[in-house]
Amino acid sequence: MISQKWVKLIKSLHTKKYRKAEQLFFVEGEKAVLEVLSSSWTVQALFATTSFLAKHTDRLHTVPLVQQCTEDELVKIGTFSSNDAALAVVAMPHWPEVDLETTPWTLVLDTINDPGNLGSIIRIADWYGIHQIVCSPETADCFNPKVIAAAKGSFLRVQLHYLPLTTVLSQTTLPIYGAYLGGENVHTLPLQQTGGLIVLGNEANGISTATGAFVTRKITIPAFGAAESLNVGIAAAVICDNLLRLSAACAK
Amino acid sequence: MISQKWVKLIKSLHTKKYRKAEQLFFVEGEKAVLEVLSSSWTVQALFATTSFLAKHTDRLHTVPLVQQCTEDELVKIGTFSSNDAALAVVAMPHWPEVDLETTPWTLVLDTINDPGNLGSIIRIADWYGIHQIVCSPETADCFNPKVIAAAKGSFLRVQLHYLPLTTVLSQTTLPIYGAYLGGENVHTLPLQQTGGLIVLGNEANGISTATGAFVTRKITIPAFGAAESLNVGIAAAVICDNLLRLSAACAK
Repeated sequence: MISQKWVKLIKSLHTKKYRKAEQLFFVEGEKAVLEVLSSSWTVQALFATTSFLAKHTDRLHTVPLVQQCTEDELVKIGTFSSNDAALAVVAMPHWPEVDLETTPWTLVLDTINDPGNLGSIIRIADWYGIHQIVCSPETADCFNPKVIAAAKGSFLRVQLHYLPLTTVLSQTTLPIYGAYLGGENVHTLPLQQTGGLIVLGNEANGISTATGAFVTRKITIPAFGAAESLNVGIAAAVICDNLLRLSAACAK
Repeated sequence: MISQKWVKLIKSLHTKKYRKAEQLFFVEGEKAVLEVLSSSWTVQALFATTSFLAKHTDRLHTVPLVQQCTEDELVKIGTFSSNDAALAVVAMPHWPEVDLETTPWTLVLDTINDPGNLGSIIRIADWYGIHQIVCSPETADCFNPKVIAAAKGSFLRVQLHYLPLTTVLSQTTLPIYGAYLGGENVHTLPLQQTGGLIVLGNEANGISTATGAFVTRKITIPAFGAAESLNVGIAAAVICDNLLRLSAACAK
């Protein structure tokens, strides 16, 4: 049984304010919990079913508090509608400062509101080897349980920085690609150099005027049909895929 | 107020069995309802707020039953957590038989379970001008309200056929591209012809052995980072983007 103290703490971690105050967040489900246990991140407490604990005894020796509980208890404290494995309470990492110059590619998110979209973008960034994302302060919190769930284990490999975008963008001389309707066709974009910043805008409003003022190259995914738009996660994937492809060709 | 008869009918349409029996489904939200009203599809009944009705009087003359109701009523009968506009009850379309030979590209879905993924794939297909999807009978139902919501208006422009895949695939001589880990790099794939079939596998298990036996070309999205996989909707978009790009180059 999970103590009332922990139930209360974990429930408070559903909210950004308390995650920030405690500098903690939680990870749910077998695969993600195993990934965080194998990482260098600090797991402060683990609540898991008997079968999870029996299966993974060798992975638990570094965790200060390991407690057996039922699936029902996991569902009550977490956000999953079923969880037959575990929930880990994890300390927020200390990421170094944002570094645009020595990082080949950086994603810039101009107010992505939906946690599912943010999680999906983190997973895509990880696939394409992009390890740094700069988010406007209004973007969804990357330690929101829905973001963590959608990012799969990729939240461990991508660093997020919440900063005023105009300040960050004004400090670089790298190319700043912005996703627009009506920009240059991303299929045939001539690249002069590899690396740069890729700006993606808000789900409803796109890139804001203030952020857009720093974009040096407006790019567009060509449409072959009649759909008005693509979801921002889908657009992120297609743009990263094209820029990394062109970049690999350019580096040759 | 919505009559009990309609409340009961619409609630039954949450379930595939009743959608099939009635040959009806429903569409929620202002944008999608307006798209269906502008289409050639038959709207049998429309339930809408006073403000929606006032704003769109000119669009309603072909609908046999138009009824004013409250936002609360829309939420009660539908699946949205808020709906300040409308819900339309729509007759299922009569799509022609599947036609692989005169259609440039066809998507083939080998048991996509998640309605959100299916809706997302329909929207992507529409963006890339792919108007035909063949689904294994186990794939999520395309008239599921979650599919309709995720597809945005694109469900109006993409025809779905639920058929045993091995039967369909055995009848074509077109190239059959299958998304695998460890196939040919989709960035640099040499295409001999434009058009063909693009097979995407189940979220957890990928393409089944029986379906995979018909794949003539295994293709892969190159990874630049450490993520183990991409969501199937994301993979669909990146693969369509590459095949359509290569196909346009090939056609020149």
